[in-house]
Amino acid sequence: MATPIKPSVVYGRPVSTDGVPNIYRGATVVPWTAPDPGIDNLGINSVDTFAVPGVGEYTVPFDGYVRVVRSEPTSRDWHQAEVYTNLIEMKMVGECEELGRITVTLNPQCLSTGQIRTPFDPYAGEGPSAKACRMAVGAMFDMPKLGLKLANKEPIILTIDDVRQIPPAGAPGKGQIYRMLPLHDIEHFEEQPVAYVTSLRFNMGGYITEEEIATF
Amino acid sequence: MATPIKPSVVYGRPVSTDGVPNIYRGATVVPWTAPDPGIDNLGINSVDTFAVPGVGEYTVPFDGYVRVVRSEPTSRDWHQAEVYTNLIEMKMVGECEELGRITVTLNPQCLSTGQIRTPFDPYAGEGPSAKACRMAVGAMFDMPKLGLKLANKEPIILTIDDVRQIPPAGAPGKGQIYRMLPLHDIEHFEEQPVAYVTSLRFNMGGYITEEEIATF
Repeated sequence: MATPIKPSVVYGRPVSTDGVPNIYRGATVVPWTAPDPGIDNLGINSVDTFAVPGVGEYTVPFDGYVRVVRSEPTSRDWHQAEVYTNLIEMKMVGECEELGRITVTLNPQCLSTGQIRTPFDPYAGEGPSAKACRMAVGAMFDMPKLGLKLANKEPIILTIDDVRQIPPAGAPGKGQIYRMLPLHDIEHFEEQPVAYVTSLRFNMGGYITEEEIATF
Repeated sequence: MATPIKPSVVYGRPVSTDGVPNIYRGATVVPWTAPDPGIDNLGINSVDTFAVPGVGEYTVPFDGYVRVVRSEPTSRDWHQAEVYTNLIEMKMVGECEELGRITVTLNPQCLSTGQIRTPFDPYAGEGPSAKACRMAVGAMFDMPKLGLKLANKEPIILTIDDVRQIPPAGAPGKGQIYRMLPLHDIEHFEEQPVAYVTSLRFNMGGYITEEEIATF
């Protein structure tokens, strides 16, 4: 299902999907354990705020799924383990009156990459064993009501803290957007941004079924 | 002086340097004014913290310069104006005992881009007219003592708030790093990161002379 276009922009470490099994609803996740490689099929929802200069600011709830391939962990010891991830598929759909229906997918020009590792700055409140998850994402925002397809050129950094299991299903996360993340019209990609994401919060869902993926 | 390699990764809007004058020490900056295009030759210093897994965390002060080309403003009205920037040259040098001398330059594979505009979320304490400056940077960290050249694959997002003049010379700024920004060994660029930037704070200096640039 992944796109056949070879990405020209690679945000981190590529992870092969060769021979890696898909994991769906019903799989068991064991806390504090560095698991075998897998392709996690997970639900996701988010609330994104878009600012369109001169027009307005709009907050839109999205619902959908992601497919994430996970590498072999660098260690089977939880505290030492680093796991590398690639976001190989995403579809999220949202709607608001002013912007119409918005479909968010991966930008096939970008390899969206991430990792899970023990942070250098453990928070108070996180256990000493909690890990940090981060992913750099190149996305496309299709807004047919406005006749626009937008894409980010800087990656959107999605983070989940206090990670106690892999994958961090069920955990809330945040897009680390400082004031504004520019979005460009893909038809005029060398020109200035036409809109901005000003806020992004998400919840990583649990494992879903192939049938649930097909409904999006 | 800019590199002749065409970048394969472009983080925002390209800005042409054709016919744009260099601006050096002695130039006057007028607050609350959207100026003509220019190439700003500015001093800069920063304090960066590097984490090397299994080895340690090191905080290093850097000093150097940047050359930034600024676009024609989209309006001559300060509040409306957007200005687009490209970082066309950078050299910063720092040193610590464990890592040795570190030289930071632009990654010629990346076009480092930025913009200055009125934020959508004015802070309390910033005047209503203050602008926000941001730049997405692809850098190389040459560490000859360790025999390593490192580069980031996600851009480093440098921000300056409460911008009352263009360029924001003399203003403090911050690298918007959430917990860790991965650095890759350019000799093994497809592999996992070997180090991280965990903190970055900088001060944009004033205009400098061509002679001062030559001393770095």
